[in-house]
Amino acid sequence: MSGARMFSSTDRWLLKKLYAAIGSPSVRIALKDGPAVGPKDGHVVAGLVIHDRATLMRIVVNPEVAFGEAYADGAVEIQGGLLTLLDAVYCPMAARGNSSWYPRLASWWLRLSQGNTRLGSRHNIHHHYDLGNQFYQLWLDRNLVYTCAYFPEPSATLEEAQLAKMNHVCRKVWLRPGERVVEAGCGWGSLALHMARHYGVKVKAFNISHEQIVYARWRAQQEGLDGRVEFIEDDYRNIYGRFDAFVSVGMLEHVGREHYREMSKVIHRTIGDSGRGLLHFIGRNQRRPLNAWVRKRIFPGAYPPSLREVADILEPSDFAVLDVENLRLHYARTLEHWLERFESSRQQVATMFDDRFVRIWRLYLAGSVAAFRAGSMQLFQVVFAGPQCKAIPWTRAYLYQPQPQSAGRMQAAD
Amino acid sequence: MSGARMFSSTDRWLLKKLYAAIGSPSVRIALKDGPAVGPKDGHVVAGLVIHDRATLMRIVVNPEVAFGEAYADGAVEIQGGLLTLLDAVYCPMAARGNSSWYPRLASWWLRLSQGNTRLGSRHNIHHHYDLGNQFYQLWLDRNLVYTCAYFPEPSATLEEAQLAKMNHVCRKVWLRPGERVVEAGCGWGSLALHMARHYGVKVKAFNISHEQIVYARWRAQQEGLDGRVEFIEDDYRNIYGRFDAFVSVGMLEHVGREHYREMSKVIHRTIGDSGRGLLHFIGRNQRRPLNAWVRKRIFPGAYPPSLREVADILEPSDFAVLDVENLRLHYARTLEHWLERFESSRQQVATMFDDRFVRIWRLYLAGSVAAFRAGSMQLFQVVFAGPQCKAIPWTRAYLYQPQPQSAGRMQAAD
Repeated sequence: MSGARMFSSTDRWLLKKLYAAIGSPSVRIALKDGPAVGPKDGHVVAGLVIHDRATLMRIVVNPEVAFGEAYADGAVEIQGGLLTLLDAVYCPMAARGNSSWYPRLASWWLRLSQGNTRLGSRHNIHHHYDLGNQFYQLWLDRNLVYTCAYFPEPSATLEEAQLAKMNHVCRKVWLRPGERVVEAGCGWGSLALHMARHYGVKVKAFNISHEQIVYARWRAQQEGLDGRVEFIEDDYRNIYGRFDAFVSVGMLEHVGREHYREMSKVIHRTIGDSGRGLLHFIGRNQRRPLNAWVRKRIFPGAYPPSLREVADILEPSDFAVLDVENLRLHYARTLEHWLERFESSRQQVATMFDDRFVRIWRLYLAGSVAAFRAGSMQLFQVVFAGPQCKAIPWTRAYLYQPQPQSAGRMQAAD
Repeated sequence: MSGARMFSSTDRWLLKKLYAAIGSPSVRIALKDGPAVGPKDGHVVAGLVIHDRATLMRIVVNPEVAFGEAYADGAVEIQGGLLTLLDAVYCPMAARGNSSWYPRLASWWLRLSQGNTRLGSRHNIHHHYDLGNQFYQLWLDRNLVYTCAYFPEPSATLEEAQLAKMNHVCRKVWLRPGERVVEAGCGWGSLALHMARHYGVKVKAFNISHEQIVYARWRAQQEGLDGRVEFIEDDYRNIYGRFDAFVSVGMLEHVGREHYREMSKVIHRTIGDSGRGLLHFIGRNQRRPLNAWVRKRIFPGAYPPSLREVADILEPSDFAVLDVENLRLHYARTLEHWLERFESSRQQVATMFDDRFVRIWRLYLAGSVAAFRAGSMQLFQVVFAGPQCKAIPWTRAYLYQPQPQSAGRMQAAD
């Protein structure tokens, strides 16, 4: 066998191995100027061309991480659109985990090195949320809500859907004027300000992202709400004081399951036995680590829990789960909007950072769209109440009535 | 110290011990012609008079079981109403478990002796559900629905609320005409017949209560639905065949947590990766055995799970939880209706059985009202879908629109 032929047959073997490992999708995978593999039925929706043998080998050894790195480096070429390719791959992969030892080891190492201690959390959050508000302003809605929106109709705009999400959350915890609310992980402050303005509550909102807190305080002042909303640059573990409701939208993913007992204690000491709360978070159907490349490049230390794991937070205080809603299709739609806006601003993003950054973020956003579409990620809103919580909604019908305010629509428990 | 005085001080000590063990409620507890204990603030809403020292001692040793037995035997007298007394006791007890060794041991022994093997389940179900249809006809709604109803308004009648519950369930699993549905634990067949008549589906419904199945078959024939609903007298573990949806209302409590993996397999083999399902069951905020007296006299082998335990059923097949609703206030209301109807028929019940039976059932119904009111029991409806389920509702708004039919109101996932 000549050297060239031997290389070619090794390449073919590697491509076949990779193709099988990702669930034999409707995708053609080729080595540039070399062999290719694809579906037996010939139905190809997208193509991937890997530029060199070294990249192919890295992808075979650890597909999750090495594909992301290769895309970031421009060492692969996508044919037929990135999202089409990812949709095609995510669908058969939805129910799979890492199978071989090397990716598992790498994933485990990442988890160790990105732990969510108080200091670790500060690093992890800084990495993502302190990239500069200007960057996020390019592609989020005008209120900078960086969590899953709620689209009453799929055709709603992103601005409408983020507003609807904030109302959905406020009504789910049936805020009443004069109540005290604590928010753990408040982003740029939109929800806290919305609660104070439209539901007449007083809010203490915590966040360890410096850039976000500075922005949120500025907004509160601009909007004359600084007397009713206090933005505190501190860790959720330092929340003290008594409140009627605990709300956390998009923070639980950053807590890490090693810290759920701490979180449980924080919630109980803030709302006691008679309060209620809402957790909004990216979750999974079962325990499984987040995509290792996403943890490496985008969200260090992130972990989306299963509902079983969330029981570690609610059970110790005898909290009753009142309502769980899965909004994964809404997160897919939200991410489609973000991706579209991101693509429209990619020149500006490249000027702020560089082309590699653009590719990394494009892959993260498109990969997330595909993951939520395929159902390998879920978005849960969990409403809970303490064992002595006296007034709970009789049905959920009020959530679907046109009035934005929920107060006064409740029926007491007894 | 004279013998009489020694007895009296022992009695007082026992009463104090009992009073503290049940959480010092607003109840006066007395030994007949002897000492009494009660709240320090003097606020008494109900009274319990224990007829003799031996009964008092049994209640102190194992309050749950011995109180039930004493009430059944007429060895205690209630002042101010049974339900008032139970409400007063359940409220402070909501978050407690058995504390001392003897009740734990007795509870464990009960669990062993009432296991839900195929044979065990047959005994356990026969004990309760084969008491005679005439008995249940005295106090259930006209359709004999023996599970938590859904009251769109608290003032709805029981008949309206049971109808609304059946529609709520059917719409939650978005039944479409022509689909095949399997029901595990079908009672007297109301839901199966309702699904076939109003949602145009074909149903196979399983139950191991002979009396119920005979009645359900008769109804299907009477109503001309025997071509579309098949009632099968068999264990859920013997369900085979492929269906679009799996529905189980009020059976999970009888499965026992040792058998959740079996149940998980049954669900997966019937609906595969693309179906969906609904579990409606009495649950708890955390793992805790059911009241031992209720297991002894009413529901042998019953166990209401926590949501964490239900994950044992859903996680192995990668089922996604789409919706969880807690209807505990609705079960309290349902039980109030049942208790009221039961009391109106107590003469007839006593003729069918005896006075002891009347007292046992009164305590079971009133105790259940109190437990659901206090929040020591929950009622969960969990909707789930397989990882390949393609059409899931965009929002839950359609559940709250007036149309009884859900078909056609869906938005496909993609």
